[in-house]
Amino acid sequence: MNSDVVELVRRMLQGDVRALARAVSLVENDAPSARQILSCCFPYSGSAMRVGVTGSPGAGKSTLVDGLARRYRAHQATVGVVAVDPTSPFTGGAILGDRIRMREHDDDPGFYMRSMATRGSLGGLARRSAEVAAVIEASGKQRLLLETVGVGQDEVDIVRLADVTIVVLVPGMGDDVQSIKAGIMEIADIFVVNKSDREGADRVEKEVRSLHSLAAQHESWIPPVVRTVATTGDGIEELEQAVDRFWSWLAEEDRLTARREAQWRDRVMEMISHELLRTIRGHGLSDQALAAIGHQVVRRELDPYQLVPELVEQLTRGEKDGKDRSPGHCG
Amino acid sequence: MNSDVVELVRRMLQGDVRALARAVSLVENDAPSARQILSCCFPYSGSAMRVGVTGSPGAGKSTLVDGLARRYRAHQATVGVVAVDPTSPFTGGAILGDRIRMREHDDDPGFYMRSMATRGSLGGLARRSAEVAAVIEASGKQRLLLETVGVGQDEVDIVRLADVTIVVLVPGMGDDVQSIKAGIMEIADIFVVNKSDREGADRVEKEVRSLHSLAAQHESWIPPVVRTVATTGDGIEELEQAVDRFWSWLAEEDRLTARREAQWRDRVMEMISHELLRTIRGHGLSDQALAAIGHQVVRRELDPYQLVPELVEQLTRGEKDGKDRSPGHCG
Repeated sequence: MNSDVVELVRRMLQGDVRALARAVSLVENDAPSARQILSCCFPYSGSAMRVGVTGSPGAGKSTLVDGLARRYRAHQATVGVVAVDPTSPFTGGAILGDRIRMREHDDDPGFYMRSMATRGSLGGLARRSAEVAAVIEASGKQRLLLETVGVGQDEVDIVRLADVTIVVLVPGMGDDVQSIKAGIMEIADIFVVNKSDREGADRVEKEVRSLHSLAAQHESWIPPVVRTVATTGDGIEELEQAVDRFWSWLAEEDRLTARREAQWRDRVMEMISHELLRTIRGHGLSDQALAAIGHQVVRRELDPYQLVPELVEQLTRGEKDGKDRSPGHCG
Repeated sequence: MNSDVVELVRRMLQGDVRALARAVSLVENDAPSARQILSCCFPYSGSAMRVGVTGSPGAGKSTLVDGLARRYRAHQATVGVVAVDPTSPFTGGAILGDRIRMREHDDDPGFYMRSMATRGSLGGLARRSAEVAAVIEASGKQRLLLETVGVGQDEVDIVRLADVTIVVLVPGMGDDVQSIKAGIMEIADIFVVNKSDREGADRVEKEVRSLHSLAAQHESWIPPVVRTVATTGDGIEELEQAVDRFWSWLAEEDRLTARREAQWRDRVMEMISHELLRTIRGHGLSDQALAAIGHQVVRRELDPYQLVPELVEQLTRGEKDGKDRSPGHCG
């Protein structure tokens, strides 16, 4: 155990914001010490309420998350925010908005926010979001807000880290709302119709409610529809209450535990996958070797469908390599 | 080598559409024979032009893809289409539209279309799209059109299978276009402004062109902006010509080969990751064992950050297990 890591986590647990920021960065960047940090933080995580917020770009999620965070702070609950933008892997555009949003909380030790706009070459954004959230939670935050841009699979994966999932819709999105509805109905615990002072709010609400009767809802909870105008704060109190009601429902019949166990099963598999790749990259599959494979495959000198299972078998058995994997052995 | 597979692929190579459909289904469903099918198809793939089409829901991508397919067929080129909808994992909504779209090609042996709307629990949609595309290509299709709904990371991964990537924008998308632009600028070889008879087409085109000067473009190719009205066919010929021009540019200085080598490097890593997971699931990590892990982790009796690397080390060394991985050993 690296004593620097122990010291860093100790300072973080005592409320040192700079230590928290450092620990989060190390984890976000998959630094060599990341695993130790996560291991040290692990016993201190698991008690926060995790609220995921997703919806189309422009739906007003950031303002909504700010509103919720402000209410929680007003009730003395400490708050962490992880804002994830998988659609902007290169620009880092989210960061600027993030800095502006953080400024007003600059002197509040009970609030911490981190935005993540980049991703690794083989995914892993959901994994790293989960890890960043775990570190922030371990620092003592009682409410964790996970905010994602967009409604693709990445967002679904990220939101699946949450105990409570809020899907934000807005009036006037036309085709877009129609086409995303199917994919997000299944993950919503609570729907928000934001910008509900705009024309069409009734229609959106009606559509969501009509889908309730079609979709198979989880057990006895029917996702409520809360109308908000996040910019004025209208409806944020009602949203907070809806979240609390869902939280109480989760507490019954071990539902929260069951949900978190299912999440951990997925996460453990994802972690194993990541660790296996890291191992194979460390066991001879250098960038150079990989480039040579790409070279041969494109020229049809090497059949990847033969190569890969054999590489994996070697790795898991420690065998040596020397086979002919040129294509055309079929039949 | 399973002789049924050899026979299936032989019939497929001879133009048997039912054999093709069967082979595609086996690969799409990760059937036990999938790897053999892919291995048998591999020598016959690699010569088609792969065109990826992405953009927001409602941008008219299907109509555009149909238009391109029809032009290619008119020039006697055989065509395969893979339509992927990662946003609707449960509904399978894409399938219905697919059937309607396919009907007009029912008697055309030079055309084959498959839509994919589902996904595995740990991603893999990009991998399976690539594999389905490879099988369709091996059946002798000279043009492969890859169409995705949405603009999230899944879509980017899928479109990265393509030699030519077309990003479709439409006027009047407001905030949405603004927020997706950053993420898709990097992958577009050609921009299409579809529904360009609508108000705002000039503005969209101007915005895209203004981004050209900001973004780092690949080498000597500046992505052109083609205006279309897919429903009337306006601009489809210009789009076809733009694709051909990019294809010619790719042929110079081994650019196509370099691009495909880079794609294969990523795919081989993805295949290794998938195969490793499959192996570990077959080596003792049963659903029951995984459930027990989830149970212990939620109760903080087991530290997953200690468990996972050790599980992986066991797998790759064949060691026995018996360690204490309860949390709280930190420091």
